[in-house]
Amino acid sequence: MYEKQSLMIPGPTNIPPRILRTLGKPAVGHRTPAFSQLLKEVSTQLKEIYQTQNEVLILTSSGTGAMEAAVANFVNAGDKVLVMENGNFGERWGKIATRYGADVEVISGPWGERANPEALRERIAQDTQHEIKAVFVTHNETSTGVLNDTKALRKALQDHPALFIVDAISGMAVSPLPVDEWKLDVVVSGSQKAYMLPPGLAFISVSPKAWEVCEKVTSPRFYFDLRAARKSLLEKSTTPYTPATSLIIALKETLEIMLEEGLENIYERHAFYRTLVRTAVKALGLEPLAGDEAASPAVTAIKKPGDIDVKAITKLMRDKHNVLIAGGQGKLQTEIFRIGHLGYVHVNDIVMTIAALERTLKELGMNIQLGQGVAAVQELLVKAGK
Amino acid sequence: MYEKQSLMIPGPTNIPPRILRTLGKPAVGHRTPAFSQLLKEVSTQLKEIYQTQNEVLILTSSGTGAMEAAVANFVNAGDKVLVMENGNFGERWGKIATRYGADVEVISGPWGERANPEALRERIAQDTQHEIKAVFVTHNETSTGVLNDTKALRKALQDHPALFIVDAISGMAVSPLPVDEWKLDVVVSGSQKAYMLPPGLAFISVSPKAWEVCEKVTSPRFYFDLRAARKSLLEKSTTPYTPATSLIIALKETLEIMLEEGLENIYERHAFYRTLVRTAVKALGLEPLAGDEAASPAVTAIKKPGDIDVKAITKLMRDKHNVLIAGGQGKLQTEIFRIGHLGYVHVNDIVMTIAALERTLKELGMNIQLGQGVAAVQELLVKAGK
Repeated sequence: MYEKQSLMIPGPTNIPPRILRTLGKPAVGHRTPAFSQLLKEVSTQLKEIYQTQNEVLILTSSGTGAMEAAVANFVNAGDKVLVMENGNFGERWGKIATRYGADVEVISGPWGERANPEALRERIAQDTQHEIKAVFVTHNETSTGVLNDTKALRKALQDHPALFIVDAISGMAVSPLPVDEWKLDVVVSGSQKAYMLPPGLAFISVSPKAWEVCEKVTSPRFYFDLRAARKSLLEKSTTPYTPATSLIIALKETLEIMLEEGLENIYERHAFYRTLVRTAVKALGLEPLAGDEAASPAVTAIKKPGDIDVKAITKLMRDKHNVLIAGGQGKLQTEIFRIGHLGYVHVNDIVMTIAALERTLKELGMNIQLGQGVAAVQELLVKAGK
Repeated sequence: MYEKQSLMIPGPTNIPPRILRTLGKPAVGHRTPAFSQLLKEVSTQLKEIYQTQNEVLILTSSGTGAMEAAVANFVNAGDKVLVMENGNFGERWGKIATRYGADVEVISGPWGERANPEALRERIAQDTQHEIKAVFVTHNETSTGVLNDTKALRKALQDHPALFIVDAISGMAVSPLPVDEWKLDVVVSGSQKAYMLPPGLAFISVSPKAWEVCEKVTSPRFYFDLRAARKSLLEKSTTPYTPATSLIIALKETLEIMLEEGLENIYERHAFYRTLVRTAVKALGLEPLAGDEAASPAVTAIKKPGDIDVKAITKLMRDKHNVLIAGGQGKLQTEIFRIGHLGYVHVNDIVMTIAALERTLKELGMNIQLGQGVAAVQELLVKAGK
């Protein structure tokens, strides 16, 4: 049905109509007092989302561009860096740092489990010469549906001087990530996740300690040079290059919506979606990839049931039932499928997604009792008074 | 008046309502057959705009990001490169290449005149050892309102093996730039100019010769790695990272509009705007920065009249008369003001801009005969039967 597809993928997410209307506003000039005022306001509001006093800079790119900025601005060729890898996006940190000539050491963990803070602590303890310049972690590993214990990972670093750099692209404003309280030096997020915007903007916070490193790093960068972005923002409330103006206008609208709801309520809502989806899929005899202790509030990865082709599930869900879910990524491409539940999601969306999944699996020959997953969701809704 | 400001700056440009409506469409998934089909279609249509058989890749960034891609993918640290510089954006080529460790040689020309093909020809003739790896030029120098003679510049390179790399951000689909006929290796353009879209997308074409260089270049790049973009496009009709989906949906709409109008008509229309604006400002006793032979069809730079502060002109135009025009850039910041006339512009927009300029200059104390500029425009319109 025309424009009636539901995005239950881990980004891009559904966009609220209030945001869609904003996206259709006439163009504005980006070197005007009005736009500078807007930029100042959204930059301040982003600090609230990030729970930080650090500058939060806006880049016109997708999240990966901001990940590259987090490497190019803080890592020199030859620098030893540690990557905590337990999924496709942890791998990406390693790939980018390798491109920039870093000496990349990867602490790998099983895909579907949390990155191990103890492994980090041990490795850090060995580094008495402080050769390690940065530690890269993934707050929410979108590819496996795992929420890493970023607080424990940061604690494992203790007072080692390495920068602690976090990919929070799908984790920001989904699960608590108080940047200042946890002492996170560089934190990246992206517009098409919990911000409920189209892709095209990325955000990056930088601690005073990280700025000191940035000033000395000589890795080539221009468009993503954060020194230029900071200078433009602080001195003139502008950006060094033309920003995605229409998305920044929409950003203002979405930040209003988010701050009105409040971070605690947003976190609680996403945690509840996680419970609903996991309870439902378990009731259908399916197995989530991640254990309860590791499960992401943004996306649930589910092991493929028996011999059923993952692509057949996502295709039928999309083409027949109008619900977009995701397959696997990287080495789990054909092993799991993933239901996103972040951003502009209501419990009704989860009900209809589980119902569509029941029909899909039955159509693919599984022995499914229609309504069983939906019933499990509804029991929880009634119990929670929702 | 609410949302009634006219953008007569050289980008971002006014957006047609048909495009604004498209921007407000619900979100789509970027890893779907429908989006791949869209990407295939717009990539093919971009080749028509570029008049090329080369691949034209879509980047989620502003134009400067694509300029960086044009350096990082084709220039190694230590490579000798030539930059033809006669304005702020020519300077930018030099800055980016310097960041990447290139041995940058700049052939500077006066701001307001065309880059000199003879100077290039002489320098190239000296380079018998083929040490020069790339020549960077600016098709339309937005900062000075000069249209460089890109055809003659390319001819000056003759069969020297250096790559010929063109910033056509504000020049593409404004003035003829047949990429294959003129043998342009790498050509960059941006969504917020003649494409009539918001900023956030950039386009880059790459010749077979340039791809060969790209494969060997070791400069660090990940997000802007054109090899990854080509592989994703050719093998899977997708992008390596999440693209700005809403802008790509709008791109389809704008390419339909542009190809329906036809490139020749688009070029003619912009050339006519150039004549209208220049005739009008001359009738008011003002002096364009560029001579008639060098004048840009996208933007007209005008020398500040007497002692009048450029900022006072742009401020009054914007705050009182609701017309956004631009000041100068770089070393001409306080010396000129600029009227953009590219993209979604009708002759009526030029009439009202000239009228607003007449009132502004009169209000600032100039001896202006109200209506004189507008009359000059109207004479031309009547003569042209428009």
